[in-house]
Amino acid sequence: MRISDLGEFGLIDRVAQIVAVERPDVIVGIGDDVAVLEGTGEEWTLAKVDSQVEGVHFLRDAISPRQLGRRALIINLSDIASVGGRALYALVSLALPDDTEVAWVDELYRGLREEGDRFGVVVVGGNMARSKEGAFIDVFVLGSVRREHVLLRSGARPGDRVLVTGWLGDSAAGLQLLLKPTLELAPAEREMLLERHFTPTPRLCEAEVIAHSGAATAMIDLSDGLSSDVGHICERSQVGVRLWAERLPISPTTRQVAAGCRKAPWQLALEGGEDYELCFTAASAEAETLAAAVERETGTPVRVVGEILPPEGGRWLVLEGGREVALEAGGWQHWRQA
Amino acid sequence: MRISDLGEFGLIDRVAQIVAVERPDVIVGIGDDVAVLEGTGEEWTLAKVDSQVEGVHFLRDAISPRQLGRRALIINLSDIASVGGRALYALVSLALPDDTEVAWVDELYRGLREEGDRFGVVVVGGNMARSKEGAFIDVFVLGSVRREHVLLRSGARPGDRVLVTGWLGDSAAGLQLLLKPTLELAPAEREMLLERHFTPTPRLCEAEVIAHSGAATAMIDLSDGLSSDVGHICERSQVGVRLWAERLPISPTTRQVAAGCRKAPWQLALEGGEDYELCFTAASAEAETLAAAVERETGTPVRVVGEILPPEGGRWLVLEGGREVALEAGGWQHWRQA
Repeated sequence: MRISDLGEFGLIDRVAQIVAVERPDVIVGIGDDVAVLEGTGEEWTLAKVDSQVEGVHFLRDAISPRQLGRRALIINLSDIASVGGRALYALVSLALPDDTEVAWVDELYRGLREEGDRFGVVVVGGNMARSKEGAFIDVFVLGSVRREHVLLRSGARPGDRVLVTGWLGDSAAGLQLLLKPTLELAPAEREMLLERHFTPTPRLCEAEVIAHSGAATAMIDLSDGLSSDVGHICERSQVGVRLWAERLPISPTTRQVAAGCRKAPWQLALEGGEDYELCFTAASAEAETLAAAVERETGTPVRVVGEILPPEGGRWLVLEGGREVALEAGGWQHWRQA
Repeated sequence: MRISDLGEFGLIDRVAQIVAVERPDVIVGIGDDVAVLEGTGEEWTLAKVDSQVEGVHFLRDAISPRQLGRRALIINLSDIASVGGRALYALVSLALPDDTEVAWVDELYRGLREEGDRFGVVVVGGNMARSKEGAFIDVFVLGSVRREHVLLRSGARPGDRVLVTGWLGDSAAGLQLLLKPTLELAPAEREMLLERHFTPTPRLCEAEVIAHSGAATAMIDLSDGLSSDVGHICERSQVGVRLWAERLPISPTTRQVAAGCRKAPWQLALEGGEDYELCFTAASAEAETLAAAVERETGTPVRVVGEILPPEGGRWLVLEGGREVALEAGGWQHWRQA
């Protein structure tokens, strides 16, 4: 059997069975996006790794090395945010071909530094190795969270509302612009979408407000797409979900791109992935107050987009006309044929 | 300018200047083998990443996936040992080609599990991604050390003795056996050297005894080779060193391999690298007592192999006949032409 027969998630489940160990200091172990580890005192340690592989995650001609350095850190910071944590340190492991330009590496690290400085994250180590072909960038991020503030995927309860920060589908729209250069769009809007695609803002500040509120019950960051990621909350919380397509926060620019490539806007918003927004849940009585608090303190809009159902309630999407369809996890996974 | 013009160490120095930040919670940052980070309470956090790249660090036909999994963890555990620490958690980032056999991945994780279980290390997370060619394995290890026990490279003082654990050159001799299959050696000895090459024992237990003794002044693990690694102690401690070739602990088997490939045994011991033994320093009055204590408590032999000189004393190797030659860092670095 090849790994392409299993797909990324199947392979992760399989190796998790091999290495998972029950230990009281491991609060969240292998299988989730971020490890939560018991530290000494009131702080738990957070640890996360994510990679950027040339030709798979990025094309060298399409993204500047500075953007790539920022992005490699951003995707990890977003995971630290997803449990309500604070990011502290990064380690960077590179495998590079012999003919890599030093200037390219310099710019990559300037991007890491720039993004790190924004959020108080220091690069404290790493590794350098040769690659025979293509660049491989692994970034490991360490963070911390006070144990009373940690938000896991497992806390959603039937009746809770589902909320998301920011805008969904912008990153997917940016990708469409790269794939179809003939799509028409005003230069400033094109640039905005490309920036949202390459270097989205990790929602660390928003996560802090959400975690400190005491009102949120579960959280995840949107890396694979809302339809897939909200499914992780359903699995861990053992609940169902109903999302309302008309409530999804989709920018006019992304709607324009969706029209240009003959997709429904909600498809980009639900399945596009890589928005790195936060999806979280809160009791229905507190959801709007919490949304308003996050908007007030961070300037980032927050929208109620769905509700948590009982375990037997299933997973549903209410389309704009009112028709209800099964919510399918349409996100990306490695090795899996579409 | 290409990175092959700078070499691995030159490139690390360069990027360290871009990202290094002075912050009181970063005790040891980028540029050393392991990051030492201020935690809450009496424990400092240790973080380290190292990689195994197919075709660069390993050949798929030469090493079993289980050995490779063990090795990928071992090389990081050795770095945790090098500062006197305890290893706790690992995260594993893989990039794998589509046609990778699931059985190969299973065995890799069984090796990680096996080695982790030996030293109380749990795999708590990781990442899976596609690679277009060859496997890339990054292992990130977290550990801790009580602040009064940490041993850095910077503590060696003139007059101190230089000590090493175990045997030097076995790994290099194992590599010679792989490169020259016609070298004659008894099967049991061949197997021993290959095991020492692929899956050396990280010296975590020995490091604990050394760190708790209070007698050691500096420590490093031998990944690049003693001649290169003791140089790192000299740089950070601003001292010189004299090593005695006749005191180097070299096994009879490795001497036999050295003879078979027409090398001086001390060349394998000093320049071979990948032994993952510990090199440490202690005041001359305490060195033999400390060596005896480590041997008694762990069963691993410890040998005094040199002495620390004043800063202006230079770096020297006394050959077996008594002639003194300049000690040259002969270890491995990526991208650098020999």
